[in-house]
Amino acid sequence: MMVFLNGRFLPVGEARVSALDRGFLYGDGIFETLRVVDGRPFLAAEHLRRFRAGAAFLGIPLAWSDAELAGVWQELFRLSHTRDGVLRMTLSRGPGPRGYSPRGAGPPTLLVTLHPAPPTTGAAAGWRVVTSRIRGTGPRMLAPYKVCNRLPQILARADADAAGADEALILDEAGRVVEGASANVFWVTGDELWSPGPCEGALDGITRRWVADHCRKRGWTVREGTLPLEQVRHAQGLFFTLSSLGPVEARELDGRPLPRWPGFAELRSAYEAALRTL
Amino acid sequence: MMVFLNGRFLPVGEARVSALDRGFLYGDGIFETLRVVDGRPFLAAEHLRRFRAGAAFLGIPLAWSDAELAGVWQELFRLSHTRDGVLRMTLSRGPGPRGYSPRGAGPPTLLVTLHPAPPTTGAAAGWRVVTSRIRGTGPRMLAPYKVCNRLPQILARADADAAGADEALILDEAGRVVEGASANVFWVTGDELWSPGPCEGALDGITRRWVADHCRKRGWTVREGTLPLEQVRHAQGLFFTLSSLGPVEARELDGRPLPRWPGFAELRSAYEAALRTL
Repeated sequence: MMVFLNGRFLPVGEARVSALDRGFLYGDGIFETLRVVDGRPFLAAEHLRRFRAGAAFLGIPLAWSDAELAGVWQELFRLSHTRDGVLRMTLSRGPGPRGYSPRGAGPPTLLVTLHPAPPTTGAAAGWRVVTSRIRGTGPRMLAPYKVCNRLPQILARADADAAGADEALILDEAGRVVEGASANVFWVTGDELWSPGPCEGALDGITRRWVADHCRKRGWTVREGTLPLEQVRHAQGLFFTLSSLGPVEARELDGRPLPRWPGFAELRSAYEAALRTL
Repeated sequence: MMVFLNGRFLPVGEARVSALDRGFLYGDGIFETLRVVDGRPFLAAEHLRRFRAGAAFLGIPLAWSDAELAGVWQELFRLSHTRDGVLRMTLSRGPGPRGYSPRGAGPPTLLVTLHPAPPTTGAAAGWRVVTSRIRGTGPRMLAPYKVCNRLPQILARADADAAGADEALILDEAGRVVEGASANVFWVTGDELWSPGPCEGALDGITRRWVADHCRKRGWTVREGTLPLEQVRHAQGLFFTLSSLGPVEARELDGRPLPRWPGFAELRSAYEAALRTL
């Protein structure tokens, strides 16, 4: 596996960062994950925009232009002999003196890696979902960005693993549904779709936005908000959105089967068509 | 500067971790910071206990015994020709496949570094403190551990830097005081000391505990809790506790001078005596 690290392409085994990199010491960075089909990273402009916004918010200079980053992706496709998979871009503040102050840190570390796409078989069958022990996802002001502070999501994901499930819900401290460990969440109540967004503490997901826009264009009502877990358990359908897999339906929540929302199959087809054309 | 990384002592410039280390990618790790005076790390047993509890909570195996870690510290003192400073221990889950699941990750990465002690001159004069823009510190269940998800603290610290201040307060979403960017906080109201703890979302600080115990033994009332910023602004005294510096008094909050609590000088003396004897 070849990776891009700070201007060089090299085998992953040689890709090393300083042990004093603030990404390693404090999670002081951001990342993006992009699905690539036939050499085209899906919604690349939106991912680049969020990556750049996150860097600006954290005050980490990003010395590469969008065109240069796109060139890095193409070179990774060439070196990896594949034009499909999942791209990850990570930007950290780089090494710095001890302590939280960003003063004197840098230069930033930029890592770009290309991974195999996750298998879609489990997703096609529908996910088994459990409620994790995690309450709260961190300061709301960070929700618009994909920051490298991911312990709530990691612990929620470990809860899913322990239960033999595919995904786990994270609630807020009042017991309302916020998001999945690795995905935004939608559910169907009456004739409305609901999805918690950054105001509720969920990541401002790019696939979530694409799905919400698509559903609105299709004439469905999409509300940004949240509900208590008990109400979500009685939804007429539940699905997740994530960059690496797109929209994925849930078939079970905490051991109880969920109804399947009739609109999901059409949404999924629209997503797959978009993957190949956008 | 010599550091310890995964069983080897080496110059910091050669201390590198995999770019796929989950510490770097997700902040998937914990750390501790210990003040060392004359070769004795202060409250070492308490720091080791929290380090080990955090590793267990995150499910990261820690292959080194307390005695082995103490041996690493002594060797760092010897190699660094000093017996004073600040030790930092960092444990991450190590490299792993893409995605939040901890499955298949490892072996863990252990880094131990020794840094110069921060200058105490600023602390002796009293800190200038501002209120940061940060609301909330992350899930309460993480507050007992010193996790490597430190963006709220980094952004609060950047607010202090931008204001030319020494420290910045982090509030919760209701506007109540939680902690400082790099320290726990205490204030004096009437004849009571108040300090937010893990139930309020603050780190379960080891110096905080030592100070609270000391104050209680001294006959002062110490309450674990929080108050709205407006009430803290009218406190009869405000101070911080952190491992690298001990208790540090605030002299100004958001540009307004604070009264100095008459008990602080004695507390500071007791801490300095303990540093040299415990």
